[in-house]
Amino acid sequence: MVITGPCSVESRKLIESCADFVSGIGISVLRAGCFKPRTSPYTFQGMGLEGLKLLSEVREKYGLKIISEARDASHIDKVIEHVDIVQVGAKAMYDQGVLRKCGKAEKPILLKRSFGASLQEFIQAAEFILRGGNENVILCERGIRTFETKTRFTLDLCGVAYLKEHVNLPVFLDPSHAMGYAYGVADLTRACVAMGVDGLLIESHPYPKTALSDASQQLNFKEFKTLYDSIGAIATAVGRNIV
Amino acid sequence: MVITGPCSVESRKLIESCADFVSGIGISVLRAGCFKPRTSPYTFQGMGLEGLKLLSEVREKYGLKIISEARDASHIDKVIEHVDIVQVGAKAMYDQGVLRKCGKAEKPILLKRSFGASLQEFIQAAEFILRGGNENVILCERGIRTFETKTRFTLDLCGVAYLKEHVNLPVFLDPSHAMGYAYGVADLTRACVAMGVDGLLIESHPYPKTALSDASQQLNFKEFKTLYDSIGAIATAVGRNIV
Amino acid sequence: MVITGPCSVESRKLIESCADFVSGIGISVLRAGCFKPRTSPYTFQGMGLEGLKLLSEVREKYGLKIISEARDASHIDKVIEHVDIVQVGAKAMYDQGVLRKCGKAEKPILLKRSFGASLQEFIQAAEFILRGGNENVILCERGIRTFETKTRFTLDLCGVAYLKEHVNLPVFLDPSHAMGYAYGVADLTRACVAMGVDGLLIESHPYPKTALSDASQQLNFKEFKTLYDSIGAIATAVGRNIV
Amino acid sequence: MVITGPCSVESRKLIESCADFVSGIGISVLRAGCFKPRTSPYTFQGMGLEGLKLLSEVREKYGLKIISEARDASHIDKVIEHVDIVQVGAKAMYDQGVLRKCGKAEKPILLKRSFGASLQEFIQAAEFILRGGNENVILCERGIRTFETKTRFTLDLCGVAYLKEHVNLPVFLDPSHAMGYAYGVADLTRACVAMGVDGLLIESHPYPKTALSDASQQLNFKEFKTLYDSIGAIATAVGRNIV
Repeated sequence: MVITGPCSVESRKLIESCADFVSGIGISVLRAGCFKPRTSPYTFQGMGLEGLKLLSEVREKYGLKIISEARDASHIDKVIEHVDIVQVGAKAMYDQGVLRKCGKAEKPILLKRSFGASLQEFIQAAEFILRGGNENVILCERGIRTFETKTRFTLDLCGVAYLKEHVNLPVFLDPSHAMGYAYGVADLTRACVAMGVDGLLIESHPYPKTALSDASQQLNFKEFKTLYDSIGAIATAVGRNIV
Repeated sequence: MVITGPCSVESRKLIESCADFVSGIGISVLRAGCFKPRTSPYTFQGMGLEGLKLLSEVREKYGLKIISEARDASHIDKVIEHVDIVQVGAKAMYDQGVLRKCGKAEKPILLKRSFGASLQEFIQAAEFILRGGNENVILCERGIRTFETKTRFTLDLCGVAYLKEHVNLPVFLDPSHAMGYAYGVADLTRACVAMGVDGLLIESHPYPKTALSDASQQLNFKEFKTLYDSIGAIATAVGRNIV
Repeated sequence: MVITGPCSVESRKLIESCADFVSGIGISVLRAGCFKPRTSPYTFQGMGLEGLKLLSEVREKYGLKIISEARDASHIDKVIEHVDIVQVGAKAMYDQGVLRKCGKAEKPILLKRSFGASLQEFIQAAEFILRGGNENVILCERGIRTFETKTRFTLDLCGVAYLKEHVNLPVFLDPSHAMGYAYGVADLTRACVAMGVDGLLIESHPYPKTALSDASQQLNFKEFKTLYDSIGAIATAVGRNIV
Repeated sequence: MVITGPCSVESRKLIESCADFVSGIGISVLRAGCFKPRTSPYTFQGMGLEGLKLLSEVREKYGLKIISEARDASHIDKVIEHVDIVQVGAKAMYDQGVLRKCGKAEKPILLKRSFGASLQEFIQAAEFILRGGNENVILCERGIRTFETKTRFTLDLCGVAYLKEHVNLPVFLDPSHAMGYAYGVADLTRACVAMGVDGLLIESHPYPKTALSDASQQLNFKEFKTLYDSIGAIATAVGRNIV
């Protein structure tokens, strides 16, 4: 399963453009953030509830499913209400206020690994949700923090091999946040497909250079389409299909 | 300023015992957690609001100030209401729901560095609070996650030297969580005092082996007293006083 | 280019068995270590010069090329003399005694990244060799040391994407040492092939459980053959061929 | 024991100046590097054997002991011959060519921890030397590589607490290399003294800004003298003496 979309809902025009592109190439799930867990207080923090409403509009209009991120417990209820898949962001992985609500939600939860979390802690966070009664948990590796600074994070594919062997939950990958630069996203995506992972989150934007967040790592539509067209053969080679 | 107390409020009896010890040796601030951000869902999660009420009781009875931790946005209001100093735990450092409320609180905030956070992110989290209007922010280094596993975390004293040089906020240290083992806490505490830090958080417990959380790293009262008696001379040597 | 063989030359019988297997499936380069940079002084340190001579024998008999590792400057001359490709091990990446000799050697050098080395230092080590006059340098990523301990190291594929973009040297991958466990080697190998890397080093052994070093991560011949047969289709999908 | 001196022997004039300063304030061991393990091939690589000879001259003239670093096995014999204490540099910690020669040397060995080495590997490297027959091994922590980049490395004082508890060898500290910036060296040095470590290596230079290596982290003589004068009281407070 390939999921794409911009880092953030920036405007109705942007999200319409993305929804149109995504549905046009046959992808069924659109991602976009409304509550941005930006580290600096001086940067764009997302459109919040207004963004969720814009996502609901395009869901109806384009027949897409929506995934968006909960940043903390103060707005988790609103996110659960408006989306089809609830994304627990990397910075919220330890947030028990969020995890408890996700355990009671009747929607799938995509749980991102904190960039500082061990695999054991990642699995334990998933268990919080499972123990709450929600068995629909997807694990998502998005890069860990290491001493290497030429790339934004380090995508932990050894960890993915560990999860595939030891945990009975679907595993998604987010190569965009791991790399931090558009130039490496295609190669990493192809690596993930060859590992037989269950899904991919890839950031795309009509004009990445103008994006209000994560400008350096988003693919433009042409780059994304080229990449998307290249992965079917790899998936076939490892006995899987792209949906 | 030296702050001590048990990892968690486990019972009235425990917290009375700790308050009696702490006030008896002339320390004025008692620490104890009520909402434990435990990674595993199968371990003790803290006494919650009931714990905060027990802390309020001993505050009155012993004339102590209380510091306790907020784990996430779902209970931050209650913590702010009951304590004298609000501790933002390491796992909540990125939690904007928590940070925003702290920015509006009229109490000092002790902000712990996430074990996966860069110094830049740590300072940015403090800026969230400052920008909200609360200028009473204390930075607390408590160990970062590195490849070394013989100790629980790695206390980043180079980072403390950086903060002292570049940031105009008080810096506290928590050697107990960094080390993870009682045997190293005294030496690390003395190192922190010699660096001239503004405060220390040290876990102590009447019977550490029976503690419901962090059993391995808490000092018993005798060990703590011996350590406490040893640091005055170091403080004097660097031109500071223990209060 | 796929290179395989056991971690260490353990005996003539072992290396004959491996050479027979490798040449039988059409692989042209055999790897095996003679000077083992084992951290503990109490473990098998390799057969040394005797091992190099055994490798020379099978080179003649099976028409294979040989790659073997130099651990330090005290035996670098002997390794250069006996092998077809000189491997500079991860623990020798900073060794200027080794790098200077490699710069004067008239053989290809496979330079492994130290598990503690930044990409910048890795590239600088390659420049030491290039500046010495040897332009035949291959970079090999084999996993970096991070806080994650469920796997032996963390294969840095973001770093590989960086090297492919910024450095004009061939890039090889060693998924066996990164993972440390045989169960993940096949998935990681397929990921590397899909990234379009220039070569792979994979450890194989007729009876991994009895191996004198790296027992947990070596594939047996059947596992290796199954993996080897699976990667051709992925290579084709990304426009490359397995040789 | 406090050891100081410049990063590198740059000239007779420099090393005379340093020897004069060091002996003048009552310090008995002078440090200076001759074979620099510089990562980049384009920077100053040290004066080599000529530097060792200059060090021998000042030893005679000023009655000092000399410590200098071996970078790799190609010159270890010369270093052992000329110095009083052999320093195995961080980048040579895994070098068995170096470790074996040190095991046969009849001089003390100061073994620096590789910035990528676990404590276990550090101890195992010491065991290589001990097993060779030389029981005079000093462990030296000089900072490990972590995700934090505001400082050059992260001084691992938790690891020092571990070594003091578990290993029966003297432990020295090198705060200069850990911090990478002169502004933090004094505070870190005082922290090390308060931990009761057995010795300190601190870089000093008459004119740090003009130094051919490590310019940013060396103290000038006035800064060093001020620091040196401040640590006696801390040492006394923890029951030790500065020699």
